[in-house]
Amino acid sequence: MKTAPALDLPIRLDRAYDLPLERQLVEQLRQFILDGRLTANTRLPSTRVLATALGVSRNVAVAAYDELFAEGYVVGRHGSGTYIAPDLVPLARPRTTISNGNPRWLRAQTADVAVEPLVPPGAIDFRLGRPSVAPLDPQAWRRAWSDVAHRPPLAEYGPPAGDPALRAAIAGYLGRARGVACRAEDVVVTSGAVQALDLVARATLTTGDTVGFEEPGYPTARRVLLTHGAQLLPLPIDDDGAQVERLPHGGGAPLLAYLTPSHQYPLGARLSVTRRLAALEWARANDSLIVEDDYDSEFRFDAPPLPSMAGLDETGHVAYIGTFSKVLAPALRVGYLVAPEPLRERVIQLKLLADYHTPGPVQQALAAFLTSGHLEQHIRRMRRHYAEKRRALHDALAPATAYARLWGLEAGLHAYLDLRPGLEPAAIVDCAAQHGVVVSGLEDYYIGISDRNGVLLGYGGLTVNEVERGARKLAEIILALGRRAAR
Amino acid sequence: MKTAPALDLPIRLDRAYDLPLERQLVEQLRQFILDGRLTANTRLPSTRVLATALGVSRNVAVAAYDELFAEGYVVGRHGSGTYIAPDLVPLARPRTTISNGNPRWLRAQTADVAVEPLVPPGAIDFRLGRPSVAPLDPQAWRRAWSDVAHRPPLAEYGPPAGDPALRAAIAGYLGRARGVACRAEDVVVTSGAVQALDLVARATLTTGDTVGFEEPGYPTARRVLLTHGAQLLPLPIDDDGAQVERLPHGGGAPLLAYLTPSHQYPLGARLSVTRRLAALEWARANDSLIVEDDYDSEFRFDAPPLPSMAGLDETGHVAYIGTFSKVLAPALRVGYLVAPEPLRERVIQLKLLADYHTPGPVQQALAAFLTSGHLEQHIRRMRRHYAEKRRALHDALAPATAYARLWGLEAGLHAYLDLRPGLEPAAIVDCAAQHGVVVSGLEDYYIGISDRNGVLLGYGGLTVNEVERGARKLAEIILALGRRAAR
Repeated sequence: MKTAPALDLPIRLDRAYDLPLERQLVEQLRQFILDGRLTANTRLPSTRVLATALGVSRNVAVAAYDELFAEGYVVGRHGSGTYIAPDLVPLARPRTTISNGNPRWLRAQTADVAVEPLVPPGAIDFRLGRPSVAPLDPQAWRRAWSDVAHRPPLAEYGPPAGDPALRAAIAGYLGRARGVACRAEDVVVTSGAVQALDLVARATLTTGDTVGFEEPGYPTARRVLLTHGAQLLPLPIDDDGAQVERLPHGGGAPLLAYLTPSHQYPLGARLSVTRRLAALEWARANDSLIVEDDYDSEFRFDAPPLPSMAGLDETGHVAYIGTFSKVLAPALRVGYLVAPEPLRERVIQLKLLADYHTPGPVQQALAAFLTSGHLEQHIRRMRRHYAEKRRALHDALAPATAYARLWGLEAGLHAYLDLRPGLEPAAIVDCAAQHGVVVSGLEDYYIGISDRNGVLLGYGGLTVNEVERGARKLAEIILALGRRAAR
Repeated sequence: MKTAPALDLPIRLDRAYDLPLERQLVEQLRQFILDGRLTANTRLPSTRVLATALGVSRNVAVAAYDELFAEGYVVGRHGSGTYIAPDLVPLARPRTTISNGNPRWLRAQTADVAVEPLVPPGAIDFRLGRPSVAPLDPQAWRRAWSDVAHRPPLAEYGPPAGDPALRAAIAGYLGRARGVACRAEDVVVTSGAVQALDLVARATLTTGDTVGFEEPGYPTARRVLLTHGAQLLPLPIDDDGAQVERLPHGGGAPLLAYLTPSHQYPLGARLSVTRRLAALEWARANDSLIVEDDYDSEFRFDAPPLPSMAGLDETGHVAYIGTFSKVLAPALRVGYLVAPEPLRERVIQLKLLADYHTPGPVQQALAAFLTSGHLEQHIRRMRRHYAEKRRALHDALAPATAYARLWGLEAGLHAYLDLRPGLEPAAIVDCAAQHGVVVSGLEDYYIGISDRNGVLLGYGGLTVNEVERGARKLAEIILALGRRAAR
């Protein structure tokens, strides 16, 4: 460590470092200035003197002073002496380099935070939200990305509502697959379903507004709505889906109702046609908006499709949300919104302020994948693929039927296993975890206290063999605990 | 058009349609139920009678009734008669299919909307925010996407803070290029700089909070902050950047100050080191947060780099925002945030509720592009590329120096052309447009009324030849109008 003459400050220049010597010198001098060790108007040694003292060529000192001069740290000319700038106020040095944990500019948190449980390596993970991408045709996938890779990216921002080709492909797909008759202009491409909901919430909610919400329901949607200040009105679930007849009329009518009619999240019930019509009539009569989250309706098994609420809606009271997370892959982060005109326009404006638009390359690849017919081919393949897993789950749990009944297997990638009274879900979750099988209880899905006795089983992302092994182990545990409880 | 017996309703089945006959039948019967033409408890004709009347096989009618039954529209068994379900309430049919334009669930707008001027085809477009991607190495770009195209996408959500490889690559890049010493864990990958600002605003602002904001400043940032209820305190700009000494202390101190120190947007000034230090000291003393938007600092020309405020900050009072929109392409929608710990953690939670994470394929490709060294190579190439355009702009405007002075050419992809008093920016904008040259006035950049007399020139996205032709035309116009005004 050398010392700068007339300054008595330690300087360390090391040729072994990646950084050029003059940069090392600049950074150390700058640090002395910033921390107050070199104060305003201090005269610096001449470049010749400094260079000699440090054992470097004079060019190094000249370059360093030049840079400090250009940056405004020092003034004067090299010949007549160099001084620390007269108007520099050194930074106050705190003890630690981090402010206290609770600065005044950090807002209070408005929603609880999801805590993902740790999954031991090798465990069979039945948590929800993990689809499979195994049956994806590699050649079709590669072709979809071909244009992205072979052309330079656009030098402009894209349209906030989405690339016209993708909007048209989604509109065609929704008409064919979901009975949602819409034009390309009706579709807004979003960065996943969660952004579609977030933008709808931004466009509609003011702190304190009431939103009808399924109980139990989708935790991420609940958190999004709470973040925007919503008061949630719980709508209990039965075999026909959410009890929409509980939605109040008149002055107390919620502004929005968030529903998952195709496959209630997480219990799997389908909202009956009667309730769909009743909810639409409620929305029309009270000028409320229904947010229909159709997150996984593509995977129906025995049951025929029910018309989507957006397909039934004729008065502009449904915002329809869908996603490619389940039919393709969550990591793509592409979803869409079909919404009545005034909402759609507002959402497009807000999208511009949220992220301008969904990344161009992903939209481009997805449009290619859809228009070539590969998405629908992939979905057909996935249906067979999931049907096998579903059958494996059903069969492996059959021995425990006396103690546990499967719900919501008609569609989607997960099911609910309802336990006979006396069986404790927490005990089953714990015991299964000890045997390397991860299942979730319902706690995180409730606004209030769970009134149901069961566990959730996401089977989409597992192999058939994993589903079999995991479910067989689970059946054993349930039988053992059930027999013990029955004694 | 055939008629359903005993119902007297028109049914049209057409073998020329793509839709199977039973689906055609289902949809028409469903429509009659939904619009009230078939009311609750109405008995439907037998499948045999219906099939004969419509001239189709009985299987078609059986399949249609089966589906309506499964969907809950009809009840009863086929043998003993089929009835419309007793609890169905038909949808009220409004005159129009769209609700009025102002439903109660649509929030009042909180920020003005950007209106992009129409640009005639073939015009030379000097509007801001359009970089060039021409010098991109096609082979490097293709290689960056190779893994994305050749491997199926991940079947899981990625981490909300971003892919570890990209976070590490950004941290390395910031240390080398911007003097922001940070670890991978300090970086949050965002969907563009606008999302970084939006998330910071969400994490910090409550309606009515004050934010120091450059005047003139970046319109998109202004709109984002207004959307979150901010009150903006204008900080006028001079040759040394924003007048941060105007930031009030004590009870009236703004919660945030939004600054573009490297290259003030839109005027191009650099915030002096003295002011950088003063602003940091202000933030520390008042427990306020500085949001440093370093949107295009990569493109410096004659001037040496100034230390970023995040690099100078030692007390955790700077949130640093950057983007790949300018150095690579805006359509990628990738930016980043480096923020002190409590803010960073909150932003990661909010990111999860905004879009879960930035799309995996784009992060993956970008990480490959950065770690292979191609980004820095590309930036070096771009510097030379932009320097040419910059020189062309400067030289072509030189004849008009008596009437117009260029500002902010030291960095970035745009410059400000300050006009001599007496010259009207609006007249120059109009006259240039008539000659196929699109330039912008400053109106959209001000919170209040513009106190400056000039136009903005974005040259990043134009070719050298376009810059020359456009600027030469502009110089002619300025000279002509200037001489006329001087008379």
